[in-house]
Amino acid sequence: MSDSATLPRINGRRLWDRLQAMAAHGATANGGCNRQALTDTDRIGRDLFLDWCRQAGCDIRIDAIGNIFARRPGVDADAAPVLTGSHLDTQPTGGKYDGVYGVLGGLEVLETLNDAGIHTRHPLEVVVWTNEEGCRFDTAMMGSAVWSGAMPLAEACALTDRDGHSVGEELQRIGYRGQEPAQPFPVHAAFELHIEQGPVLEAEELAIGVVTGVQHMSRHRVFIDGVATHAGPTPMAMRKDPMMALAALLPALFALATEQGPEARVTCGFVQARPGSSNTVPEQVELTVDIRHPQLARYRALEAGLEAAVQDACARFQLEGKVSCFWEAPGVTFDPDCVAAVAQAVEALGYSHREMVSGAGHDACNLAAVAPTSMIFIPCEGGVSHNEAEAITPAQAEQGANVLLLAMLERAGVAA
Amino acid sequence: MSDSATLPRINGRRLWDRLQAMAAHGATANGGCNRQALTDTDRIGRDLFLDWCRQAGCDIRIDAIGNIFARRPGVDADAAPVLTGSHLDTQPTGGKYDGVYGVLGGLEVLETLNDAGIHTRHPLEVVVWTNEEGCRFDTAMMGSAVWSGAMPLAEACALTDRDGHSVGEELQRIGYRGQEPAQPFPVHAAFELHIEQGPVLEAEELAIGVVTGVQHMSRHRVFIDGVATHAGPTPMAMRKDPMMALAALLPALFALATEQGPEARVTCGFVQARPGSSNTVPEQVELTVDIRHPQLARYRALEAGLEAAVQDACARFQLEGKVSCFWEAPGVTFDPDCVAAVAQAVEALGYSHREMVSGAGHDACNLAAVAPTSMIFIPCEGGVSHNEAEAITPAQAEQGANVLLLAMLERAGVAA
Repeated sequence: MSDSATLPRINGRRLWDRLQAMAAHGATANGGCNRQALTDTDRIGRDLFLDWCRQAGCDIRIDAIGNIFARRPGVDADAAPVLTGSHLDTQPTGGKYDGVYGVLGGLEVLETLNDAGIHTRHPLEVVVWTNEEGCRFDTAMMGSAVWSGAMPLAEACALTDRDGHSVGEELQRIGYRGQEPAQPFPVHAAFELHIEQGPVLEAEELAIGVVTGVQHMSRHRVFIDGVATHAGPTPMAMRKDPMMALAALLPALFALATEQGPEARVTCGFVQARPGSSNTVPEQVELTVDIRHPQLARYRALEAGLEAAVQDACARFQLEGKVSCFWEAPGVTFDPDCVAAVAQAVEALGYSHREMVSGAGHDACNLAAVAPTSMIFIPCEGGVSHNEAEAITPAQAEQGANVLLLAMLERAGVAA
Repeated sequence: MSDSATLPRINGRRLWDRLQAMAAHGATANGGCNRQALTDTDRIGRDLFLDWCRQAGCDIRIDAIGNIFARRPGVDADAAPVLTGSHLDTQPTGGKYDGVYGVLGGLEVLETLNDAGIHTRHPLEVVVWTNEEGCRFDTAMMGSAVWSGAMPLAEACALTDRDGHSVGEELQRIGYRGQEPAQPFPVHAAFELHIEQGPVLEAEELAIGVVTGVQHMSRHRVFIDGVATHAGPTPMAMRKDPMMALAALLPALFALATEQGPEARVTCGFVQARPGSSNTVPEQVELTVDIRHPQLARYRALEAGLEAAVQDACARFQLEGKVSCFWEAPGVTFDPDCVAAVAQAVEALGYSHREMVSGAGHDACNLAAVAPTSMIFIPCEGGVSHNEAEAITPAQAEQGANVLLLAMLERAGVAA
């Protein structure tokens, strides 16, 4: 790829039009998108994607968990594909680009090569993973987890939504329970193109994030037990008030994040006092703490620090506290060759960029366990995502897809 | 009352037996009591009290809000009564003594004087106030509020429970919508005997609290608005996280209580982060703050300090915070003559005691607006109240009633 000037460029207009056309299915009054996994709206979105793929001459395969693979054949029939893609499902009050951009950006790579009459040695595939969001059915990155072997197919099919409908039934109902086994096949390289879902690229005025991995992350539940008493008669010094321990704990938790440097994340997303009466000292406070760090040693320091902070805060007020982890995802280091292919593509295109670690989980985390993988980020407005206000510009969308195009070509090899 | 040795003493055994007999109506599996206002169980409790009053020769009046007045005539037919009493209704998981002790302690005073053949110049009356707890119908101290003129009768009658039943309907249904107008009549002096509902007397090993007044108190709602973002991608320094402001606010609030001395009370009984997802920085935190102090200047300092603490904490993180008061009860200073009568009684009986200010509201607060009033506290186990575990000993019950007896006699005057 020494002569990048001779290589093709994405048709940004077509990509943008398709992003908007897809967003019409499940469009919300506030300009966002509600296209939850395996609903009728998801089916319509999938059908639209398949129409476009067939028009582009792709071969389609659908596996037993509803993952869709659209292939553009390579010159070498036996070569493993270079894979890209993401998901079409959204949050209930989601945006138009989370996931969708990675799917349609991938399709645009295939279209661009068709237009330019360029053939690759390895086949190229665009994948749509089922139920990445995990909101209707409570397991995020479900389709890629089943495909990569991290979750048994039967377990995924048995997941139910609030109305009691299962994944298995809903796949059948919308016609996306496919014939292919949901299991890994050889993949030469995989890339996932995605909006950053954070504010760093925008704040630093950069076009592209070269993603080198995903943070270590876990979620913990903290309970602090006190003794409920009437707000009036009991002197402060005689209380067993879990809110006093919380007052000591919260500053300690945020200090812990500072200690572990700018890449550390500590989030207390849930807090509740029980019984929750304004004139009763609570008998219990519950808090969740989400901790993340790209470096394992510092991540472990956050974990240990959380436990110590809870015990210290409770000891100060002679209260009982306990911490338990209810979810953990080990960090991922992406494949150096895939990361290098993205970095080369960005350099060749002359886009401003930085290396970064993803703060959120993605289907690429599951892929990375079984295939050489990396990711490409573009900025999104204000870093806002999982929100109807999610926004990108056509130019940003085009730049990210150009990077994907050149990275895939580098890994797939242009046929002579 | 210079010769207290010649004065009668309470029959502690009868008082205790009646406390247990009353507790049988609404008895809970955990040894507490559920006899909420204007239920069938409340009716049965009221009927039992009236039986005892009639056996004691009392004249009964019931007013339009269901308050019961049981009178033992005085020698001077025109003299205003010396009043005592409290309430028979309980919390849903309430105890056996909150309120009930004050009613049956008052009846025991009348019985003791009957037994001893002592006549008083002023009549004595025992009152049962309707719906003091304010749990089934959401207004605490309702019956005494209506009687004292703090709440219109029609407004009280229109209050409904969760099933839509109104106070007016329920009074009618259980047969306690009385003929007397619910309005103040001349009262020479009033006393309310009550368990402390706090741990001070027990901790200091004292038998009696000579209550000089009730704290100033108010309840406030604090909202801190931030921006919801994903727990992963957004660096700590770029967040608008209301939990960070809460981490600054809570220690400031408890420090405020310390600054205003040992009589200050600051209680955060309710806290909630929204949307409450473990991997989302909250968009809003709501907190309630209950503040109390017996001294007006220090109470005002707590109020001002709360507002300043919220604004400071929010300013540190460039967030919006607001505080609004949703309930306020001005403090009460009890009548010096009534307080003195209680103090003299305690001295005469030789019981250990201290002066104290009530941390909780009582029917006596409403009475104090229209009649000379004070209160007498006895210890309760661990300071626990509004709880099925509420406990006192027979000796404690007897001592408190003896104090009430002598204080009422002092105010009513023993007939020659």
